[in-house]
Amino acid sequence: MSKLTDVPKRILIGRALRSDRLGETLLPKRIALPVFASDPLSSVAYAPGEVLLVLSIAGVSAYHFSPWIAVAVVVLMFTVVASYRQNVHAYPSGGGDYEVANTNLGPRAGLTVASALLVDYVLTVAVSISSGVENLGSAIPFVVEHKVFSAIAVIVLLTVMNLRGVRESGKLFAIPTYVFVAGVFIMIAWGAFQTLVLGDTMKAPTADFEIKPEHQGLAGFALVFLLLRAFSSGCAALTGVEAISNGVPAFRKPKSRNAATTLALMGGLAVTMFCGIIALAMASGVKMAEQPATDLIRDGQAVGADYVQNPVISQVAAAVFGQGTFFFVVLAAATALVLFLAANTAYNGFPLLGSILAQDRYLPRQLHTRGDRLAFSNGIVLLAGAAMLLVGIYEADSTKLIQLYIVGVFVSFTLSQTGMVRHWNRHLRTERDPAVRRRMVRSRAINAFGATFTGLVLVVVLATKFTHGAWVALLGMVMFYGVMSAIRKHYDRVAAEISAPDEPGDETARPSRVHSIVLVSKVHRPTLRAVGYAKLMRSDKLEALSVNVDPAETKALRAEWERRGINVPLKILDSPYREITRPVIEYVKSIRRENPRDAVSVIIPEYVVGHWYEHLLHNQSALRLKGRLLFTPGVMVTSVPYQLQSSEAAKRRAKKRSEWNAPGAVRRGPVDQRHHHKERAQQGAKD
Amino acid sequence: MSKLTDVPKRILIGRALRSDRLGETLLPKRIALPVFASDPLSSVAYAPGEVLLVLSIAGVSAYHFSPWIAVAVVVLMFTVVASYRQNVHAYPSGGGDYEVANTNLGPRAGLTVASALLVDYVLTVAVSISSGVENLGSAIPFVVEHKVFSAIAVIVLLTVMNLRGVRESGKLFAIPTYVFVAGVFIMIAWGAFQTLVLGDTMKAPTADFEIKPEHQGLAGFALVFLLLRAFSSGCAALTGVEAISNGVPAFRKPKSRNAATTLALMGGLAVTMFCGIIALAMASGVKMAEQPATDLIRDGQAVGADYVQNPVISQVAAAVFGQGTFFFVVLAAATALVLFLAANTAYNGFPLLGSILAQDRYLPRQLHTRGDRLAFSNGIVLLAGAAMLLVGIYEADSTKLIQLYIVGVFVSFTLSQTGMVRHWNRHLRTERDPAVRRRMVRSRAINAFGATFTGLVLVVVLATKFTHGAWVALLGMVMFYGVMSAIRKHYDRVAAEISAPDEPGDETARPSRVHSIVLVSKVHRPTLRAVGYAKLMRSDKLEALSVNVDPAETKALRAEWERRGINVPLKILDSPYREITRPVIEYVKSIRRENPRDAVSVIIPEYVVGHWYEHLLHNQSALRLKGRLLFTPGVMVTSVPYQLQSSEAAKRRAKKRSEWNAPGAVRRGPVDQRHHHKERAQQGAKD
Repeated sequence: MSKLTDVPKRILIGRALRSDRLGETLLPKRIALPVFASDPLSSVAYAPGEVLLVLSIAGVSAYHFSPWIAVAVVVLMFTVVASYRQNVHAYPSGGGDYEVANTNLGPRAGLTVASALLVDYVLTVAVSISSGVENLGSAIPFVVEHKVFSAIAVIVLLTVMNLRGVRESGKLFAIPTYVFVAGVFIMIAWGAFQTLVLGDTMKAPTADFEIKPEHQGLAGFALVFLLLRAFSSGCAALTGVEAISNGVPAFRKPKSRNAATTLALMGGLAVTMFCGIIALAMASGVKMAEQPATDLIRDGQAVGADYVQNPVISQVAAAVFGQGTFFFVVLAAATALVLFLAANTAYNGFPLLGSILAQDRYLPRQLHTRGDRLAFSNGIVLLAGAAMLLVGIYEADSTKLIQLYIVGVFVSFTLSQTGMVRHWNRHLRTERDPAVRRRMVRSRAINAFGATFTGLVLVVVLATKFTHGAWVALLGMVMFYGVMSAIRKHYDRVAAEISAPDEPGDETARPSRVHSIVLVSKVHRPTLRAVGYAKLMRSDKLEALSVNVDPAETKALRAEWERRGINVPLKILDSPYREITRPVIEYVKSIRRENPRDAVSVIIPEYVVGHWYEHLLHNQSALRLKGRLLFTPGVMVTSVPYQLQSSEAAKRRAKKRSEWNAPGAVRRGPVDQRHHHKERAQQGAKD
Repeated sequence: MSKLTDVPKRILIGRALRSDRLGETLLPKRIALPVFASDPLSSVAYAPGEVLLVLSIAGVSAYHFSPWIAVAVVVLMFTVVASYRQNVHAYPSGGGDYEVANTNLGPRAGLTVASALLVDYVLTVAVSISSGVENLGSAIPFVVEHKVFSAIAVIVLLTVMNLRGVRESGKLFAIPTYVFVAGVFIMIAWGAFQTLVLGDTMKAPTADFEIKPEHQGLAGFALVFLLLRAFSSGCAALTGVEAISNGVPAFRKPKSRNAATTLALMGGLAVTMFCGIIALAMASGVKMAEQPATDLIRDGQAVGADYVQNPVISQVAAAVFGQGTFFFVVLAAATALVLFLAANTAYNGFPLLGSILAQDRYLPRQLHTRGDRLAFSNGIVLLAGAAMLLVGIYEADSTKLIQLYIVGVFVSFTLSQTGMVRHWNRHLRTERDPAVRRRMVRSRAINAFGATFTGLVLVVVLATKFTHGAWVALLGMVMFYGVMSAIRKHYDRVAAEISAPDEPGDETARPSRVHSIVLVSKVHRPTLRAVGYAKLMRSDKLEALSVNVDPAETKALRAEWERRGINVPLKILDSPYREITRPVIEYVKSIRRENPRDAVSVIIPEYVVGHWYEHLLHNQSALRLKGRLLFTPGVMVTSVPYQLQSSEAAKRRAKKRSEWNAPGAVRRGPVDQRHHHKERAQQGAKD
């Protein structure tokens, strides 16, 4: 099977790299940009539309406010980009918002950011895929007619790809992202040329529609509130900006500077595209309504429930290139693909954050291990399940989902920037070099402004979106926070319980002698091997033990034992009720009762088989006995495996599993570098 | 929780017996009769109705054949009872049909009987509960209006009771069974008195109905076929007769004679009740139709789909006692209760047969252990699932389910009786005492007649019922047969693979030295205990091993190791990709490569926690590592458990599990006796 799927995989994403060569795959800026920017750049596919949607509530006249809202979004984008450029320089380890908040504001702030980010990853998948389906649907109507089904199909596809460990490559991201960016720029340029130079009037498919305002003639506070809500929606364009700050180690040297440059480049591209699309939408007369079925009027009549409201970007493309033309279809496909790639970044980020949280004991420790397929699988399945749930509940409607989206982003923006202010404060306390101090003060000012601005936006988002769905995101955050606190508490309690006492001579750890028992049911190779191994261990006392559940079998066992002259005494326990576990446990306890300082070593021969159904047929008594023995103090339990021929299949499967590639490797950069940087950063933080 | 449920349990079924006192609970005949006869006696609640149903196809005039069919059923019942009295004497071990067929006709016949019995148990549950719900419904219409739901609710209730291990007691069976038997006899006597002495005309609720025959004026072969089909349906009265032959060890001494007497008593009661109910049905003018909705005519009109056709026994009770009277309700309740008890016997028989089959390696070996809750649970859940499936598919319609029922019974009757003929033949070859020989020849004649008669009935049942549903039962048997053969084949293959070679000096079993490795992640109590135990084992080489997934932690570990002066060398493995399993496996392999005759002992400290969710938080790396190590040749894996405080809860749960009572204990009799008898029987068979 592997052979068959390898060929298309290689064609798609290039020859897989051996993991020890991972260190060589550092990203040049031209590849880093698409790798990290697919999420923020793709948001321009839905953010402009959301602004128009909200404004339409006050009627089409409110569309005139859209340039001002665009300006506000641009200012915010510049603020956030400038702030994160400071993060990138201060935390070249790729710490990310969680680490920044955790280090500078304490564990509660860190956990809050982590909860916000986890919710955010789920929403990135749900929103990006829903929007991708809507964009694809403007070219292929079938997709949008079966919207929920299509969205879930894409989630399943991404999940399977990531579970199988398809190794990403920079190229996979580069081609659609550059096609998308180029397409949007060509569209903007060609639209501007047509309007300004040729003087043509572009007409969007909805140019002749009218909008029935839900609230005619809004003014005063109500209008301000509506504009703030439109601004909140436009802030969707900022989602994903923080991704680069996690990925500094993946950049070529000078890492921090390259990352900062890429960040600036990304911000510049995003705002240009955002503003360009809004401008074209205004010029071509795009009409969008929150309730299109009743509020969009065509020829004096509401368009009705059958009407599909296409995304702004596709309406603009229809106006500029013409509906269904080659350019139109290419742009729609590239838009959808970039949105799906954006969703894929959450598949990388979610388990990565999980592994960092596991390191801090907020999540099960085994998630910490990098490249551990099982750990990643759990994260991926959890993410996909939650995203599918949301897609199902909100019927893959990106507009509804976006109401939930922005809270988490701005929680982490605000806390991260506040943390950065503290970071500079701490460093300024010790730093004496005036040039460095000047730079730090400047950075602190930028971060302080960023924290204030994003904090304000958070308040605005909460105020305007809470009843529209933001409460769901908050609830999700509270749940993550609660579970992670509980896990941490459990680990702390266990750590206190098992911490080694300082004075030596702890009785429980130092029994005086070992009494070994080999469990025997028949004389066969596994038994002989277990007896052989047990003899090698030279314990103080060694005996073989069998439970008499069938007198005839026991008699045969005893005869065979003597015939072979096995020089280990064979003890038979009676079991009138044909139990195995209880007599053994009682015997072990009786040994401990007689010699409380003895340790008992129970040695169990085990078959190793290859298939799960074979497992059902073997070792069940042994497994249950082992389970019970673990609760008996002063006992150690040894399995002596005997590999049956069929176990080869299972061995191959296990090996294949261990060669699995964890997703997100490219974005994360090589591990040793990461570790190196992190240690430096931690040392820096401790200064 | 245990405390709360114990009180009603004690009230219901008496104080639970300690299992070592089980030997004292031998059954007197007056208790043995209800314990074993609830299944065959309860069948008179549906068998007479099935006869009338089939006859109604030829119109109400065909009802006149019903006494002849009753006679045929009575003759068959006497034959079967007489035959099984021979089994009871020949196999006082309670061998049952499987053992008789297996011993005398070979493993294929045995497996066929076993498959038939397993299918039969499933159908006993489905049929008895469906019929019980119908009977209860004649008093409480709600139940029959929600028939499938009620039937499934009863199955769930029985399943939960049996999973929890409610200990049956003879009294539990005695009261409803005797109430039922007494009720039916009072009904027959009172009905006869009314009709014969008082000269009243009893009228069943359906007395004035007419039946539209599906085939008017059947004659010749078609009529014979219909009568045979009616006879086949009447044979449902024989299901469960073989139960006593499994339960001889549970009787008081003289066991075999008491069992034989009980068997005769049961046969006598069953045929009297069967004939009495048919006679009352004739006298009171009961009308039943296979398709009541269209074929039952009331006042010239079909009764329609809303009509609920009550069972014969309840229609007769309505005629004799009057609908809704005290006696009517008591009889309906007792009938339903006896039918539910009959279903419960399958819950005991199914896992018991499973444990015997497991002993012969047709089912996973762990099912063999008596009183093993897990093994019984699997059997109970399988049984309940299959029965629920059938109830769902056949809409809890006892008439439809009975079409499937009788095949299995007669397969095992026929093979068992044929086996008995062989049994006597073999004994006659060596027996010299003329008195004993005479008895044996008589027994052989009875069994030969029984085999011929039941074989004929089997052919009749197959011919008349195959297309009506018997094929489903056959398919079920084939499936059980196939799975059990495959399991046996697997065990045989493994046994051949692991059988110990006769010449000593097998290299694989005798490594020369042991290299022990204690896995260490931190210095805490579990680690210290593991190191302490490892030292006691005095292996040839001992070292502690840690995987460096985090340089800072590793540094701290090394410092602590030195500070404490632990005199075991600490080896650190590098793991640039933060894996744990792979470096350890490779290291173990490298040891084996350098010294192929060394065995490697890997010692893993483990926490023992109390709750499943705590399990998720601990030992996962250890578990996975153990899983992989089992596939590595020349390795033994030792767990050194460290019991955390929370493990107490799990220990209590495990202890409670081990004190669980397996269902069916009363019917089976005490084990040691059983074993004793069985050995004698086997020795007898070997003579």
